[in-house]
Amino acid sequence: MNDSALTPERILAAAEEVLRRYGRGKATVVDVAQALGVSHGSVYRHFASKAALRDAVLRGWLERMMAPLRAIAASRTAPPARLRQWLATLRSIKRDKALGEPELFATYGALAADAREVIGEHVEHLREQITSIVAAGVASGDFRQVDARATALAIFDATSRFHYPGMAHLWGTPGEDAAFAQLVDLLLAGLAPTTAPPRRRKSAG
Amino acid sequence: MNDSALTPERILAAAEEVLRRYGRGKATVVDVAQALGVSHGSVYRHFASKAALRDAVLRGWLERMMAPLRAIAASRTAPPARLRQWLATLRSIKRDKALGEPELFATYGALAADAREVIGEHVEHLREQITSIVAAGVASGDFRQVDARATALAIFDATSRFHYPGMAHLWGTPGEDAAFAQLVDLLLAGLAPTTAPPRRRKSAG
Repeated sequence: MNDSALTPERILAAAEEVLRRYGRGKATVVDVAQALGVSHGSVYRHFASKAALRDAVLRGWLERMMAPLRAIAASRTAPPARLRQWLATLRSIKRDKALGEPELFATYGALAADAREVIGEHVEHLREQITSIVAAGVASGDFRQVDARATALAIFDATSRFHYPGMAHLWGTPGEDAAFAQLVDLLLAGLAPTTAPPRRRKSAG
Repeated sequence: MNDSALTPERILAAAEEVLRRYGRGKATVVDVAQALGVSHGSVYRHFASKAALRDAVLRGWLERMMAPLRAIAASRTAPPARLRQWLATLRSIKRDKALGEPELFATYGALAADAREVIGEHVEHLREQITSIVAAGVASGDFRQVDARATALAIFDATSRFHYPGMAHLWGTPGEDAAFAQLVDLLLAGLAPTTAPPRRRKSAG
């Protein structure tokens, strides 16, 4: 490839392909440069360090993986159903990756272990999305008057068993679907208004 | 030691001491026999295999560790307070071991990885204790009419973040106490009776 045609996007695509094919051990800047037919100096012009390239690859993977969640969080589905759908989607995204592409999941897991900042951002985005759903439910009267942020953190913690990569070894065991549904039922019950929900006013018309 | 004075209890005590001093690598049957001044054949008369000795040591350690939980589960404290106390105690027992004696915690963790049956029993005992507390709360009317067993499993899963050894790396981070309290609040809210306060009827005209 001509150096002038080299863009960050092309480098990231090549890095992902190298990771997918060879795993983490083989995914050095030199390997990526080789796959593109450029010098490693050309790669370094776009990513200042090996860590910067790693972070960009991991960030891209996480953002693509999490795109369905952003759409759900921003939807107009009633907050209790929206929260259930969001949590179920987080679970199934993680589980599909962990069980469906275990080597790639392990490869990205190893990248993540060295990329605290990227993982911190990722977790924060997830927590913000839960917060927005809880806040919407409090505003609509579907949920009781809780602190949306603190409650969102509790929901994120409570469901770790089903989304934290360190628990992935449990995700293939029988009864997981029922256990997850039971847990979400309990959390939603914990959010339900303690008095009957205020009647919604019908829009004037 | 004279072989005739050798009892399973003495062997277990010696095995624990060897584990505590030297870690798992060094805790073979031969090492335990040496610590007791007997032949390894004498140890094998009481424990048929290395795995049998390992299981007995692990089971003893877990049972001693979990004794306070049994007492709480069997207490007459009101079920909501009893559940909170039980969960807080499970958390603090695990955390104290993990943070206070990290090497010993890792040693027993390594034993546990090979002792699925013992760990299965241990988890089942914990789940039974939660089930008994939930059932007591349903019976007393402090909790709503839930399936005690299924709900207990959900509570156990929901709190994994704070008691599963694979999550121990998070237990020293700031804000853990508040996060745990928030989670337990949410679970207890989810167990609260749902009967809305009776609607006030307008006085008949």
